[in-house]
Amino acid sequence: MLYKAEVKVTLKKGVLDPQGSAVEGAVKSLGYTGVPQVRIGKYIELWVEAENAEQAADLVNELGRKILSNPITETFTVTVTESADRLVQTGVK
Amino acid sequence: MLYKAEVKVTLKKGVLDPQGSAVEGAVKSLGYTGVPQVRIGKYIELWVEAENAEQAADLVNELGRKILSNPITETFTVTVTESADRLVQTGVK
Repeated sequence: MLYKAEVKVTLKKGVLDPQGSAVEGAVKSLGYTGVPQVRIGKYIELWVEAENAEQAADLVNELGRKILSNPITETFTVTVTESADRLVQTGVK
Repeated sequence: MLYKAEVKVTLKKGVLDPQGSAVEGAVKSLGYTGVPQVRIGKYIELWVEAENAEQAADLVNELGRKILSNPITETFTVTVTESADRLVQTGVK
Protein backbone atom coordinates (compact mmCIF):
# COMPACT_ATOMS: atom_id res chain seq x y z
CA MET A 1 0.00 0.00 0.00
CA LEU A 2 1.18 3.53 -0.72
CA TYR A 3 1.63 5.86 2.23
CA LYS A 4 2.60 9.49 2.29
CA ALA A 5 5.06 10.56 4.97
CA GLU A 6 5.74 14.15 5.96
CA VAL A 7 9.06 14.89 7.61
CA LYS A 8 9.66 18.25 9.29
CA VAL A 9 13.35 18.87 9.85
CA THR A 10 14.13 21.73 12.22
CA LEU A 11 17.29 23.16 13.69
CA LYS A 12 17.91 22.32 17.32
CA LYS A 13 17.50 25.06 19.87
CA GLY A 14 20.54 27.27 20.06
CA VAL A 15 21.77 26.45 16.56
CA LEU A 16 22.19 29.67 14.62
CA ASP A 17 19.82 30.11 11.68
CA PRO A 18 21.21 32.73 9.28
CA GLN A 19 18.44 32.06 6.74
CA GLY A 20 15.80 32.67 9.40
CA SER A 21 17.57 35.83 10.53
CA ALA A 22 17.59 37.09 6.95
CA VAL A 23 13.85 36.56 6.67
CA GLU A 24 13.36 38.32 10.02
CA GLY A 25 15.27 41.28 8.61
CA ALA A 26 13.21 41.25 5.41
CA VAL A 27 9.98 41.17 7.41
CA LYS A 28 11.10 44.17 9.48
CA SER A 29 12.30 46.09 6.43
CA LEU A 30 8.83 45.73 4.91
CA GLY A 31 7.47 47.47 8.00
CA TYR A 32 5.90 44.53 9.78
CA THR A 33 6.42 44.62 13.49
CA GLY A 34 5.41 41.82 15.82
CA VAL A 35 7.41 39.01 14.24
CA PRO A 36 10.17 38.53 16.81
CA GLN A 37 11.55 35.31 15.40
CA VAL A 38 11.65 33.16 12.28
CA ARG A 39 13.22 29.71 12.02
CA ILE A 40 13.59 27.88 8.72
CA GLY A 41 13.71 24.13 8.28
CA LYS A 42 12.94 21.55 5.62
CA TYR A 43 9.62 19.96 4.77
CA ILE A 44 10.04 16.63 3.03
CA GLU A 45 7.26 14.56 1.50
CA LEU A 46 7.99 10.90 0.79
CA TRP A 47 5.74 8.35 -0.83
CA VAL A 48 6.43 4.94 0.64
CA GLU A 49 5.29 1.45 -0.35
CA ALA A 50 4.77 -0.55 2.85
CA GLU A 51 2.50 -3.20 4.30
CA ASN A 52 1.14 -0.96 7.02
CA ALA A 53 1.54 2.54 8.44
CA GLU A 54 3.87 1.37 11.20
CA GLN A 55 6.27 -0.21 8.75
CA ALA A 56 6.16 2.97 6.66
CA ALA A 57 6.90 5.10 9.74
CA ASP A 58 9.82 2.86 10.72
CA LEU A 59 11.35 3.18 7.27
CA VAL A 60 10.92 6.95 7.18
CA ASN A 61 12.39 7.36 10.67
CA GLU A 62 15.41 5.37 9.53
CA LEU A 63 15.76 7.56 6.43
CA GLY A 64 15.34 10.64 8.64
CA ARG A 65 18.29 9.60 10.77
CA LYS A 66 20.48 8.44 7.88
CA ILE A 67 19.79 10.86 5.04
CA LEU A 68 17.26 13.56 5.71
CA SER A 69 18.69 15.24 8.78
CA ASN A 70 22.00 16.11 10.36
CA PRO A 71 21.71 14.65 13.87
CA ILE A 72 24.26 17.11 15.25
CA THR A 73 22.25 20.21 14.44
CA GLU A 74 18.75 19.07 13.51
CA THR A 75 15.77 17.15 14.80
CA PHE A 76 12.85 15.80 12.83
CA THR A 77 9.27 14.61 13.22
CA VAL A 78 7.49 12.10 11.00
CA THR A 79 3.79 11.93 10.14
CA VAL A 80 2.43 9.09 8.00
CA THR A 81 -0.93 9.18 6.23
CA GLU A 82 -2.57 6.98 3.66
CA SER A 83 -1.79 8.46 0.28
CA ALA A 84 -4.81 9.82 -1.49
CA ASP A 85 -2.47 11.82 -3.68
CA ARG A 86 -1.25 10.60 -6.97
CA LEU A 87 2.43 10.96 -7.53
CA VAL A 88 3.06 14.47 -8.68
CA GLN A 89 5.50 13.98 -11.51
CA THR A 90 4.89 12.07 -14.66
CA GLY A 91 7.48 9.55 -15.65
CA VAL A 92 8.06 8.44 -12.08
CA LYS A 93 7.46 4.74 -11.62
CA MET B 1 -0.44 37.55 22.57
CA LEU B 2 2.29 35.41 21.07
CA TYR B 3 1.28 32.87 18.45
CA LYS B 4 3.37 30.33 16.64
CA ALA B 5 2.73 29.90 12.93
CA GLU B 6 3.96 26.99 10.85
CA VAL B 7 4.27 27.54 7.12
CA LYS B 8 4.83 24.59 4.80
CA VAL B 9 6.06 25.72 1.40
CA THR B 10 5.89 23.08 -1.32
CA LEU B 11 6.65 23.03 -5.02
CA LYS B 12 3.61 23.01 -7.27
CA LYS B 13 2.80 19.84 -9.13
CA GLY B 14 4.86 19.46 -12.26
CA VAL B 15 7.68 21.71 -11.06
CA LEU B 16 10.93 19.78 -11.22
CA ASP B 17 12.58 19.09 -7.86
CA PRO B 18 16.27 18.25 -8.35
CA GLN B 19 16.91 18.17 -4.60
CA GLY B 20 14.10 15.64 -4.15
CA SER B 21 15.43 13.58 -7.06
CA ALA B 22 18.87 13.56 -5.45
CA VAL B 23 17.41 12.23 -2.20
CA GLU B 24 15.47 9.59 -4.15
CA GLY B 25 18.74 8.49 -5.70
CA ALA B 26 20.47 8.40 -2.31
CA VAL B 27 17.65 6.33 -0.85
CA LYS B 28 17.89 3.82 -3.72
CA SER B 29 21.69 3.67 -3.52
CA LEU B 30 21.40 2.70 0.15
CA GLY B 31 19.31 -0.27 -0.95
CA TYR B 32 15.88 0.89 0.13
CA THR B 33 13.19 0.05 -2.37
CA GLY B 34 9.62 1.22 -2.08
CA VAL B 35 10.24 4.96 -1.99
CA PRO B 36 9.02 5.98 -5.45
CA GLN B 37 9.08 9.71 -4.86
CA VAL B 38 10.53 12.40 -2.62
CA ARG B 39 9.63 16.10 -2.74
CA ILE B 40 11.46 18.71 -0.71
CA GLY B 41 10.03 21.99 0.48
CA LYS B 42 10.55 24.49 3.29
CA TYR B 43 9.19 24.42 6.81
CA ILE B 44 9.11 27.86 8.37
CA GLU B 45 8.24 28.64 11.98
CA LEU B 46 7.28 32.22 12.82
CA TRP B 47 6.45 33.68 16.21
CA VAL B 48 3.88 36.42 15.80
CA GLU B 49 2.54 39.02 18.21
CA ALA B 50 -1.15 39.54 17.44
CA GLU B 51 -4.45 40.21 19.15
CA ASN B 52 -6.02 36.94 18.09
CA ALA B 53 -5.26 33.87 16.03
CA GLU B 54 -7.13 35.19 12.99
CA GLN B 55 -5.05 38.34 12.89
CA ALA B 56 -1.89 36.24 13.25
CA ALA B 57 -3.00 33.98 10.38
CA ASP B 58 -3.77 36.99 8.15
CA LEU B 59 -0.32 38.43 8.76
CA VAL B 60 1.43 35.13 8.10
CA ASN B 61 -0.57 34.53 4.92
CA GLU B 62 0.50 37.97 3.71
CA LEU B 63 4.14 37.19 4.53
CA GLY B 64 3.75 33.84 2.80
CA ARG B 65 2.68 35.53 -0.41
CA LYS B 66 5.21 38.37 -0.22
CA ILE B 67 8.36 36.83 1.20
CA LEU B 68 8.21 33.18 2.07
CA SER B 69 7.15 31.64 -1.21
CA ASN B 70 7.59 32.10 -4.92
CA PRO B 71 4.01 32.19 -6.23
CA ILE B 72 5.10 31.00 -9.68
CA THR B 73 6.48 27.69 -8.51
CA GLU B 74 5.35 27.17 -4.93
CA THR B 75 2.26 26.95 -2.76
CA PHE B 76 2.05 27.18 1.01
CA THR B 77 -0.19 26.31 3.93
CA VAL B 78 -0.34 28.13 7.26
CA THR B 79 -1.15 26.71 10.68
CA VAL B 80 -1.37 28.98 13.72
CA THR B 81 -1.22 27.77 17.31
CA GLU B 82 -0.88 29.49 20.65
CA SER B 83 2.78 29.59 21.45
CA ALA B 84 3.69 27.47 24.41
CA ASP B 85 7.28 27.59 23.25
CA ARG B 86 9.73 30.11 24.48
CA LEU B 87 11.71 31.77 21.79
CA VAL B 88 14.58 29.50 20.94
CA GLN B 89 17.48 31.90 20.77
CA THR B 90 18.76 34.06 23.53
CA GLY B 91 19.17 37.71 22.76
CA VAL B 92 16.00 37.85 20.72
CA LYS B 93 13.57 40.40 22.00
